[in-house]
Amino acid sequence: MMETIKVAVAGPRGRMGREAVSLVHHTEHFQLVAVIDRINDGKDLADVDHFSWIHAPIYTDIERCFRETKPDVLIDLTTPEAGKHHTEIALRYGVRPVVGTTGFTPDDIERLTKLAEEKEIGAIIAPNFAVGAILMMKFAQMAAKYFTDVEIIELHHDQKLDAPSGTAVKTAQLISAVRPSKKQGHPDEKETLEGARGATYDGIPIHSVRLPGFVAHQEVIFGGNGQALTIRHDSFHRGSFMSGVKLSVETVMKLRTLVYGLEHIIE
Amino acid sequence: MMETIKVAVAGPRGRMGREAVSLVHHTEHFQLVAVIDRINDGKDLADVDHFSWIHAPIYTDIERCFRETKPDVLIDLTTPEAGKHHTEIALRYGVRPVVGTTGFTPDDIERLTKLAEEKEIGAIIAPNFAVGAILMMKFAQMAAKYFTDVEIIELHHDQKLDAPSGTAVKTAQLISAVRPSKKQGHPDEKETLEGARGATYDGIPIHSVRLPGFVAHQEVIFGGNGQALTIRHDSFHRGSFMSGVKLSVETVMKLRTLVYGLEHIIE
Amino acid sequence: MMETIKVAVAGPRGRMGREAVSLVHHTEHFQLVAVIDRINDGKDLADVDHFSWIHAPIYTDIERCFRETKPDVLIDLTTPEAGKHHTEIALRYGVRPVVGTTGFTPDDIERLTKLAEEKEIGAIIAPNFAVGAILMMKFAQMAAKYFTDVEIIELHHDQKLDAPSGTAVKTAQLISAVRPSKKQGHPDEKETLEGARGATYDGIPIHSVRLPGFVAHQEVIFGGNGQALTIRHDSFHRGSFMSGVKLSVETVMKLRTLVYGLEHIIE
Amino acid sequence: MMETIKVAVAGPRGRMGREAVSLVHHTEHFQLVAVIDRINDGKDLADVDHFSWIHAPIYTDIERCFRETKPDVLIDLTTPEAGKHHTEIALRYGVRPVVGTTGFTPDDIERLTKLAEEKEIGAIIAPNFAVGAILMMKFAQMAAKYFTDVEIIELHHDQKLDAPSGTAVKTAQLISAVRPSKKQGHPDEKETLEGARGATYDGIPIHSVRLPGFVAHQEVIFGGNGQALTIRHDSFHRGSFMSGVKLSVETVMKLRTLVYGLEHIIE
Repeated sequence: MMETIKVAVAGPRGRMGREAVSLVHHTEHFQLVAVIDRINDGKDLADVDHFSWIHAPIYTDIERCFRETKPDVLIDLTTPEAGKHHTEIALRYGVRPVVGTTGFTPDDIERLTKLAEEKEIGAIIAPNFAVGAILMMKFAQMAAKYFTDVEIIELHHDQKLDAPSGTAVKTAQLISAVRPSKKQGHPDEKETLEGARGATYDGIPIHSVRLPGFVAHQEVIFGGNGQALTIRHDSFHRGSFMSGVKLSVETVMKLRTLVYGLEHIIE
Repeated sequence: MMETIKVAVAGPRGRMGREAVSLVHHTEHFQLVAVIDRINDGKDLADVDHFSWIHAPIYTDIERCFRETKPDVLIDLTTPEAGKHHTEIALRYGVRPVVGTTGFTPDDIERLTKLAEEKEIGAIIAPNFAVGAILMMKFAQMAAKYFTDVEIIELHHDQKLDAPSGTAVKTAQLISAVRPSKKQGHPDEKETLEGARGATYDGIPIHSVRLPGFVAHQEVIFGGNGQALTIRHDSFHRGSFMSGVKLSVETVMKLRTLVYGLEHIIE
Repeated sequence: MMETIKVAVAGPRGRMGREAVSLVHHTEHFQLVAVIDRINDGKDLADVDHFSWIHAPIYTDIERCFRETKPDVLIDLTTPEAGKHHTEIALRYGVRPVVGTTGFTPDDIERLTKLAEEKEIGAIIAPNFAVGAILMMKFAQMAAKYFTDVEIIELHHDQKLDAPSGTAVKTAQLISAVRPSKKQGHPDEKETLEGARGATYDGIPIHSVRLPGFVAHQEVIFGGNGQALTIRHDSFHRGSFMSGVKLSVETVMKLRTLVYGLEHIIE
Repeated sequence: MMETIKVAVAGPRGRMGREAVSLVHHTEHFQLVAVIDRINDGKDLADVDHFSWIHAPIYTDIERCFRETKPDVLIDLTTPEAGKHHTEIALRYGVRPVVGTTGFTPDDIERLTKLAEEKEIGAIIAPNFAVGAILMMKFAQMAAKYFTDVEIIELHHDQKLDAPSGTAVKTAQLISAVRPSKKQGHPDEKETLEGARGATYDGIPIHSVRLPGFVAHQEVIFGGNGQALTIRHDSFHRGSFMSGVKLSVETVMKLRTLVYGLEHIIE
């Protein structure tokens, strides 16, 4: 039997926050003890749009929330500004933060790590909670030691503005860190249409597909003598992030320090 | 019961020619009556390297070959120069040519078509004999009427010099012919690494992957509201061309004119 | 300039109905003139949950709706029972029905076809509105003439109860209709674990994958000498059906008879 | 600069052996000092069919070969019987064996490990030398800790007799070893065509596709909330095994014991 973990969620009306409320509500050994929101102080979550079936007290004052409901864990899916603030208060109150916002500086991380270690509790801050994407990057880095040639194809909906995606660039960086620099393809290859061979990050070609209907997908393709190894992650909807939130809530209970990046709690 | 078709093969020692000799030998209703080669005149194919198990007389003089062995069909997998010459002689002798070489001009095609129609026999000239690749292009063109957004990814071994491949460009041309010109992707999309969004042919992005281990592969991906349709062809080895050669030998017997391009005998 | 088509939607609160209301609202040359619902008679759609931004009068009486709003087309996404009833009334009032419910008997189709032809207007009834899925089946049937070996893999979420999917079986039927019966695989092949080679429909293996995260996906894989041809459809969310609804609304305006099955309006 | 490794190859005329001879010949820091064959004793490899360009003395007597050519490493790709015998002699002569045959019993392994440790040299015995396949299995096992649902699809040419493949079963075993037993899919799911849901190994469905044109391919597909992670290995031709042979020759030089299974030298 797993012991019940008492959870508060900050930012319950955001798209990720709603998924998190639903996750906590549906996980047997999690208990939603409160939500923290800028509005609706004192109401019950069930009285707020979209949540008619889930009960929890709403607090605007985070400290009062912690004093009155004594959560084990705070899930924070708000803004960089609020997230930083919430993380610090949570640690002071002995509440373990699981934070999905970006914008923490190395200084912030250092200061908060000290605080967690003083309080002897865990904290997890992760810019990307999709466990599958983290595993894809990890496997790509491992495979790069055995295959010298690799290309990355990422596919997203056509409303995405930037190409390549942050995940594709991060994957290329991880691969680049474990292999000697290499110019791939034939030394004399020629583009008869410019751009055909894609973008290049330290010799690794990256191709960005943008099509309606797609969500967020990436393939890392390694080629070698007579064989190919392909690692693909498909994110079909934002629920994919919740696997990492759940894992983090469970893991943070066993930590005595702060961990930055989900890849460090995944073996 | 299919009637036996008597076949001569020109260029039996080339890589494609060897496959063709093997195809004719192994197809029950085909009969290898002769091969036409620049060397080894008068010998038996079985005496030549790599063919120790297949018997057929070798001719250097193509006209003598036709007179003495009276083939129904000539499979020609030689050079553009020789292929053109052989096609003409074959038609004059009432032998139906199935030709896999390129380099025929529109004038050549017109002249040879007239000759075929005078002689009331068929002739097939095809730059690409891979039935699967032809179908992929055909399906891509059909789908383009219903999906406004499409991208092409082609993957080849890293010894290939040019990117994109000829098949990718031809696919884009076929799609372009049936849809209004369109700029795909978000109007404000930006490449943070140049080339990420690939090459563009009339608004259709094309991405070329070059990796050891791969042979010749292409995906045409259509995206629409909530869905994707993907058509993929994998050519694992050059045997893939033989499906089209076989189909052509069978089809040319029923024609009374010249057909240029396998796509016109595939419904 | 396309002329504006006046559309009524029956069943606006169902999952598909809501998508249809949204489609009509967002398509420039479509105009939402009314919705038909069992409740909320006389209200405005904007006053009903989930539709706060879209205005249209709600009718419980379909005949009054047709008399007062004179739609060109009725989109019906209700139940088999109601769908049949609505189709008949629509035709009598000169409103072209586009119907997504199943349960029509051959007799129903015959009777309604006569009615459509008397009235000289079009009608479209389709059990499956996903254009990509229809194309996949069409292409599979075409390819089956050139490849004698094929297998089907379909992947769905793990809440699906039946395996294989209706689409997989229908695909196998279409393939089976154009090729001689064939036992695929090696004549002496053996399953060391029962079921490994999948289900079989007239010699065509079908494999059903059920995994959380997936929605509705299918691959039809043809294999031949040295090559493979794969046709894949991914349905990422139910919006995929709307492509077919839109096409049907546009097409039904040009018809003078009833068409059953989207495949007959797709070339 | 890597130091040159002197290599002897046993079984040079077999399909794998020929690839190995070619590998050693083409690798800059490898030197082919001899081949061991049952026939052609005393000849030069260059005088034997298919090897006209590669020189190396042929030995029928393996001990004389070791005494006269003093190889660092023996690559053995013969039969289980011969392989066992060669491994033992090689170790006695201080030659590091890299062996690709199966059929070693646990007793054999124990005895040979002792011998390697006495001699203080390395030895590698591996039933599967495809590095990509080993990585696929390793990654699958790692991912299984984070995804509770997984299915395996393996695709082979249609001359393969058994289904599922040994690699598919081994993959399922590795996954099964790290996760609690689980019945996947909907508890009430039903096969309307028997076999649709595939074979099952400890709750893991396995699907075997057999089609002409394919060589040896496998996909391991994990599904979770809103996401999928897929690991795919394609073996396009038997050259894929050579990546592991090369790695083994390099690695065996640094070992002081016997390693059974390539997975133990891949991190």
